[in-house]
Amino acid sequence: MYSVEISNHIMVAHSLKGEVFGPASQLHGLTAHVHVAIFAEELDENGIVIDIGNALEVLGEILQPLNYKNLDDLPQFRGHNTTVDFLCSYIYQRVCDAAYLHKLGREPRELSKVRVTITENPIARASYEAPLTASEAHE
Amino acid sequence: MYSVEISNHIMVAHSLKGEVFGPASQLHGLTAHVHVAIFAEELDENGIVIDIGNALEVLGEILQPLNYKNLDDLPQFRGHNTTVDFLCSYIYQRVCDAAYLHKLGREPRELSKVRVTITENPIARASYEAPLTASEAHE
Amino acid sequence: MYSVEISNHIMVAHSLKGEVFGPASQLHGLTAHVHVAIFAEELDENGIVIDIGNALEVLGEILQPLNYKNLDDLPQFRGHNTTVDFLCSYIYQRVCDAAYLHKLGREPRELSKVRVTITENPIARASYEAPLTASEAHE
Amino acid sequence: MYSVEISNHIMVAHSLKGEVFGPASQLHGLTAHVHVAIFAEELDENGIVIDIGNALEVLGEILQPLNYKNLDDLPQFRGHNTTVDFLCSYIYQRVCDAAYLHKLGREPRELSKVRVTITENPIARASYEAPLTASEAHE
Amino acid sequence: MYSVEISNHIMVAHSLKGEVFGPASQLHGLTAHVHVAIFAEELDENGIVIDIGNALEVLGEILQPLNYKNLDDLPQFRGHNTTVDFLCSYIYQRVCDAAYLHKLGREPRELSKVRVTITENPIARASYEAPLTASEAHE
Amino acid sequence: MYSVEISNHIMVAHSLKGEVFGPASQLHGLTAHVHVAIFAEELDENGIVIDIGNALEVLGEILQPLNYKNLDDLPQFRGHNTTVDFLCSYIYQRVCDAAYLHKLGREPRELSKVRVTITENPIARASYEAPLTASEAHE
Repeated sequence: MYSVEISNHIMVAHSLKGEVFGPASQLHGLTAHVHVAIFAEELDENGIVIDIGNALEVLGEILQPLNYKNLDDLPQFRGHNTTVDFLCSYIYQRVCDAAYLHKLGREPRELSKVRVTITENPIARASYEAPLTASEAHE
Repeated sequence: MYSVEISNHIMVAHSLKGEVFGPASQLHGLTAHVHVAIFAEELDENGIVIDIGNALEVLGEILQPLNYKNLDDLPQFRGHNTTVDFLCSYIYQRVCDAAYLHKLGREPRELSKVRVTITENPIARASYEAPLTASEAHE
Repeated sequence: MYSVEISNHIMVAHSLKGEVFGPASQLHGLTAHVHVAIFAEELDENGIVIDIGNALEVLGEILQPLNYKNLDDLPQFRGHNTTVDFLCSYIYQRVCDAAYLHKLGREPRELSKVRVTITENPIARASYEAPLTASEAHE
Repeated sequence: MYSVEISNHIMVAHSLKGEVFGPASQLHGLTAHVHVAIFAEELDENGIVIDIGNALEVLGEILQPLNYKNLDDLPQFRGHNTTVDFLCSYIYQRVCDAAYLHKLGREPRELSKVRVTITENPIARASYEAPLTASEAHE
Repeated sequence: MYSVEISNHIMVAHSLKGEVFGPASQLHGLTAHVHVAIFAEELDENGIVIDIGNALEVLGEILQPLNYKNLDDLPQFRGHNTTVDFLCSYIYQRVCDAAYLHKLGREPRELSKVRVTITENPIARASYEAPLTASEAHE
Repeated sequence: MYSVEISNHIMVAHSLKGEVFGPASQLHGLTAHVHVAIFAEELDENGIVIDIGNALEVLGEILQPLNYKNLDDLPQFRGHNTTVDFLCSYIYQRVCDAAYLHKLGREPRELSKVRVTITENPIARASYEAPLTASEAHE
């Protein structure tokens, strides 16, 4: 199994609802280092999983609406705790959507899975990994 | 599959028995950067795998008896070579035990696996990964 | 010249006033990796610049009132843009104050300078370095 | 499952054939940080997956013919695009070959898989992972 | 003294003339992680040394003509060994030039020095640091 | 001012004498990441401060007698607390000695200063920096 992993970062504010979060239930913020790995059983005819430049552009488009924002204010996150765990699966789904819209430059069926990792500080990170799956919007 | 990974470090002395270890059979030491990843199929009602603050506390309790020690002197390691490979599985078992003692704030059956990684220097690290398993003490 | 540098991090929200900041004038956030270096011409009788454990405790006390907060709401920052550049000099002054209050375990006159560096993301960091100086509160 | 991962780096020139590569189709270069992880279900009688010193030597021998070279000139890569994705599988096969030649100090059947990761810059890396497999030369 | 340091990277080929370089006298390549620190005695009215976004743009413009190139072919480097040491001073001069052309958004006389650091691999980096100085083109 | 910085690491045991060290007064260990920066006002005729390959060899020779050892047992450290602060100045002096023995491939008077930094864990490091100085053995 091959993979390529690309990275970018966003700087966001948010607060988390729930007793378990203690001081993190206050409005605070984080630099989220976002790493997206895309897996394929075989390389394409150019000898790559997917074009990294293209993938960085797609990731940039996914992150741009979140960057320099207070996530508590964004309609797409209403009713969700924007934990880094949740954000991993949110970005995972956006990457899958991009694949099904043929924005990754390769047939979706040739891509096997996607893993999103977010490092929030030097001692904590979260990850979500799953087979490429269409969100309801594409079914 | 979701995961959260937390990190801490200990500074220990030890020696390794066996011809294969060459100079490492002398008493020497290492800074062990310990990373513990805990995996779950689903997030809990707060949108997290487990509470990171809580997990850092559990890891601190596991590592505290080893920190600033000569591992050759510790009774729990008698008869074992305290290679980083072995220490990964040792810490793995302590994390599983904590899960079964409900110290991780989530039902053990909701957690699927645990991976422990130790970086010992910039060019070498070891890892152990397995499904959550009760040690004999809990069977 | 000797130095020791210790590190900690905080996760804060803030917004920056001024056209130059573009999207960073919106409420957003950051993980600030804070590094404090303390310099001395000579080691003390124990062979150290200062005790690292002690210094980490002092840094923890300085950062605790900022951690998991919206810096826009804190009275100590009223009238200031809480840029990482500014935060470096703010933390610098708190470290100097701790030195003059003999909290660093060594005579202030034996310490020559202090440098505070904040990494806010993988491509940007700020720093402030100056000789140990008493703030007006201690003059 | 246990693993050990060792690292080394090479500094190479190359060019990539194909429209998709844009400016990377020009002759350019990269520092390839190469990480090789070797997996085993059980530790050996010394408490290790394999000897790290030995593994570093094997990796050094694999990388030496590539280091400080223009990969476009090397006969072993004729007809291949030397993408980092491809180089991961190339190095993977050399590591497997070394295992079957008993250069890793452990029976090949005791090793379950090999993963090679190459970081080419701070925002892009590639990986190849597969069960230990003999190349045609050993069949 | 305040500073801000921004980072970017380029992937270049080159060869070095001179017996001392051994295998590096062959055509090879490197990922150059370029860090540019700009120093000022005082912050501006916005509480910053200079605008980081602006500085990243200037650095991007300086590096773009080098990225994905064989430095041996570039006219600006004719007669020079493009060691990372030399490249540090080359980029330093381009940053100074940008300052004197008022591209950094602050009066040149308010900026005291510039330091350029290039990391070429995990065990080697070079640096050049000097007061802001006009190149002959601006005198 | 130019500099090149090279890195290596050692894995050592030691204990520290003095109440201030708390648990670190027990026999424990550390991975010491050692960084040596050598400064020069001008590059040599090859366009370098000094040859990195050569410098790495010299650093390897300096560190080899310490690697995989218990520093408490080494005669050269009798009567010294082997704090990382002290080890920085010890290694600094060995690097200066090598320069005066013409092992660095450049006239000592062309080198202006040496800085040694040791990272002992992710939140603590020490440094010593001084002009190139002959130890008493060379006076």
